[in-house]
Amino acid sequence: MRQRVRRMPRRPSLGVDLGAVFDLVGGVLRWIGVAFVVPALVALFDGASVWPWLAAGAAATGGGMLLDLLTHERRIDRIGTRDGLLVIALVWLLVPMFGALPYVLAQEPQLKAPVDAYFEAMSGFTATGGTVVPDVDQLSAATQVWRQLSHWLGGMGIIVLAIAVLPRLRVGGRRLLQSELAGPTEIERLGATIRETARRLWSLYVGLTLVATLVLAFVGWVGLDDAMTPWQAFAHASSAMSLGGFSPQGASVAAFAPISQWILCLVMVVAGLNFLRLFRVLVQRRPRALTRDDEVRLYGFFLASATTLLLVELLSSGIASGESALRMAAFQATSIMTTTGFATADYTTWGGLATMTLLLLMFVGASAGSTGGSIKIVRHLMLFRIMRRDLAQSAHRGVQRPVRVNGVVVDEQALRSTVLFVLLYLFVFALGALGLVIDGERAGVELGAFDAIGSAAACIGNVGPAFGSAGPNGSYADYSNLSTAILTGLMWLGRVEIIPVAVLLTRSFWRP
Amino acid sequence: MRQRVRRMPRRPSLGVDLGAVFDLVGGVLRWIGVAFVVPALVALFDGASVWPWLAAGAAATGGGMLLDLLTHERRIDRIGTRDGLLVIALVWLLVPMFGALPYVLAQEPQLKAPVDAYFEAMSGFTATGGTVVPDVDQLSAATQVWRQLSHWLGGMGIIVLAIAVLPRLRVGGRRLLQSELAGPTEIERLGATIRETARRLWSLYVGLTLVATLVLAFVGWVGLDDAMTPWQAFAHASSAMSLGGFSPQGASVAAFAPISQWILCLVMVVAGLNFLRLFRVLVQRRPRALTRDDEVRLYGFFLASATTLLLVELLSSGIASGESALRMAAFQATSIMTTTGFATADYTTWGGLATMTLLLLMFVGASAGSTGGSIKIVRHLMLFRIMRRDLAQSAHRGVQRPVRVNGVVVDEQALRSTVLFVLLYLFVFALGALGLVIDGERAGVELGAFDAIGSAAACIGNVGPAFGSAGPNGSYADYSNLSTAILTGLMWLGRVEIIPVAVLLTRSFWRP
Ligand SMILES: [K+]
Ligand SMILES: [K+]
Repeated sequence: MRQRVRRMPRRPSLGVDLGAVFDLVGGVLRWIGVAFVVPALVALFDGASVWPWLAAGAAATGGGMLLDLLTHERRIDRIGTRDGLLVIALVWLLVPMFGALPYVLAQEPQLKAPVDAYFEAMSGFTATGGTVVPDVDQLSAATQVWRQLSHWLGGMGIIVLAIAVLPRLRVGGRRLLQSELAGPTEIERLGATIRETARRLWSLYVGLTLVATLVLAFVGWVGLDDAMTPWQAFAHASSAMSLGGFSPQGASVAAFAPISQWILCLVMVVAGLNFLRLFRVLVQRRPRALTRDDEVRLYGFFLASATTLLLVELLSSGIASGESALRMAAFQATSIMTTTGFATADYTTWGGLATMTLLLLMFVGASAGSTGGSIKIVRHLMLFRIMRRDLAQSAHRGVQRPVRVNGVVVDEQALRSTVLFVLLYLFVFALGALGLVIDGERAGVELGAFDAIGSAAACIGNVGPAFGSAGPNGSYADYSNLSTAILTGLMWLGRVEIIPVAVLLTRSFWRP
Repeated sequence: MRQRVRRMPRRPSLGVDLGAVFDLVGGVLRWIGVAFVVPALVALFDGASVWPWLAAGAAATGGGMLLDLLTHERRIDRIGTRDGLLVIALVWLLVPMFGALPYVLAQEPQLKAPVDAYFEAMSGFTATGGTVVPDVDQLSAATQVWRQLSHWLGGMGIIVLAIAVLPRLRVGGRRLLQSELAGPTEIERLGATIRETARRLWSLYVGLTLVATLVLAFVGWVGLDDAMTPWQAFAHASSAMSLGGFSPQGASVAAFAPISQWILCLVMVVAGLNFLRLFRVLVQRRPRALTRDDEVRLYGFFLASATTLLLVELLSSGIASGESALRMAAFQATSIMTTTGFATADYTTWGGLATMTLLLLMFVGASAGSTGGSIKIVRHLMLFRIMRRDLAQSAHRGVQRPVRVNGVVVDEQALRSTVLFVLLYLFVFALGALGLVIDGERAGVELGAFDAIGSAAACIGNVGPAFGSAGPNGSYADYSNLSTAILTGLMWLGRVEIIPVAVLLTRSFWRP
């Protein structure tokens, strides 16, 4: 039996338990508040104003504690699916609000407009990496650090959620982790408890970031890449691990030596794998977890195909040759497909084949259970198998065959969820692209249909850079305030995988 | 029990009954052969060579009779689903081959290359209306007539099929008609027999074409539109009824007076309705069949929204104003959404909002049970309802609710078919667009990603004109031979709704 709540009615006439929801959201906000200490310290050493960072941190922690206080003495014995969905939607909506505060408070010249600050913070915490900042090099040190940190924390998001939220849930937790981390695949518990599982994933994430940082810093230290300072090593390692894409360099990864580019390419490939499988391979030393995985094979196939197509374009148009062409092709294919968004070249100057390949890659995404966005590999795998199964059924009616992934039958409910997600994804993408051109017409901004398609795809897919003026050497600064808000919404929807937000619009969600 | 066949083994080791399939395809070819008499007569009066038309007609009729002979004395008591699917795929592949013959034989200057002739014939019989002819006005009279006639016959395709094929089927016929004509909605029999139903639909199609021709000719006769000769009246009325889009005028419908444009707009709106419902309203005088139909409402909503968006673009960019702007917006929205492809203006010069709207409309299509292509309204309706149902299910697990159209529960098998079709459609579209840019790179043709997207969408959707050089004032002549073949394949796949072709690629199709 549940214990009564003092200040909020238990299970109000709404279908969700708002007390439990606020409690969980408050927990996340308190943790995020602590993170502001890092940019505050940077500001201190940089001789800049510290108070915007402290004020934002205090606001987040205070807000979190207030929510906690409101739901004081509440014991959450159970949390329902709907409560969990609302938590996810709210966390990814509210955290970037607090994350945007210091940009406004510090009156960061290129980010002081609230709509721009919110875009940049949303882009950070959703690990999208698109920017409204035309000149990244001019940002203050603290802002630079906070941007990169927001990626890294955002990439940890699910694991933060797993540590702060899931252990408090008995029911729904598994489902939460399932929807957020592992996508539509069956979650495999790595530890005895969910809390233990989450901690291990978090350690893996931290450990891999550390290794990548050290390797990159070493490359700089031995003189192979003079631009790779320890700070740049951490900034890009954390950005790559979160598949975020922010870079303190205006030129993105083009600023670094070939060896650093290859290393970052490898980091993206690894970060684009399912963390549960990575854990089995790296920690439990069971390489079969990767080599025998259907999703890994399709991931490799897509990466190889995309690299080949880009290579053909680069070689035949004479943009690059030799190792340089292979590096540019592999890096850009990996960066866009894993939804990182780094660039080693301005791909907007490449031809139609490269443009089409990169646009299609924005709809591919990395593996489920990674920090990447977009549709994700395992869903494409399931779509292919659903199509094959249902086609066979068109020929032989009455024969009912299951869809398998890794030899295991996927239940029909999971298949329907996959289809639902993909349909919603394409629907929201199309609406977003249409919204951008409508607003472009209203605001008198010249916006081509293709650029709108690219920007909508790059934002809902949490990729970051798109085409045209929003390309890797440009920014989203040209968009009107309303369009910036639309793009912010697309990043949010993409990150929470739409369904947690879309269900809020159904009547039945709010019914008991 | 079946009777034994003499020359072909009954039910060979393949899973399909090729004897029955060839018999049905042969029947269609014999009828198509007769149609060549019309352009032959035109060539005769025009003083041009008659033999290419007679030879093509003889080839089609002879080919059909040969197939009939091969399957001599066969009594088709039953035809399976797979046989029916193969018939559909073959009919739409072979009829355009014979249809293309006279273009090659007559050495029509702009159509003498076989790949171009096949494209043009496929575009005709699939009622797509895209052309590889840069200068339509220079085509011979017989070619002009054959192009328009191929639309009209193509639009009748399903009814020809219904008359020649379905009465011979006991099982599968209903399913055939369902997949071809009514799309995913339940077919409603209008007559006592399927043959009777088909005849009535065919009469309606002929009757509506006649009425539209007479109205347009009357407009020309009373001097309201000097360009509207009786020939132009028939050419455009038949093109509009089949939602085809070929025009003997290089300027398409821009060559005519506003009143003719409004009339053609209305014809397209009517032709884009479900013919089964049109029959109920016009012949059986039951207007509720339309006013109470969910699909009709969504059709109206899409048309009104698209017209509004185009109007906003035209007015705000100052391209047109007043009645002219409304006419251009309504005409173009109707033409592209119903997949006709007529134009009253070169919409490729319009801005991003119009371009995006028109591109999205290419994925909408007309009603099921019309001669239009693309995804079609009722499928969008079902997708919306599937999404709504499955979202509600995400909030309240375990509650299983049916999806209804017009108050009637749609069975889960039909929903799955709808989803399968839409996924296949988008998949083939993406592959087609990618194929075009790959081939563009190979052939050294400058092809932007957006133009490739537009051309693939316009061809698989059986719309016709696209963007860029393939716009309404242009043609597909710039594409390489291989790309022309890709586009021809997309028109074919779109017309047969992919599944009849896609199942041929599954192993189980060919198994008994
Ligand atoms: K990203
Ligand atoms: K058409």
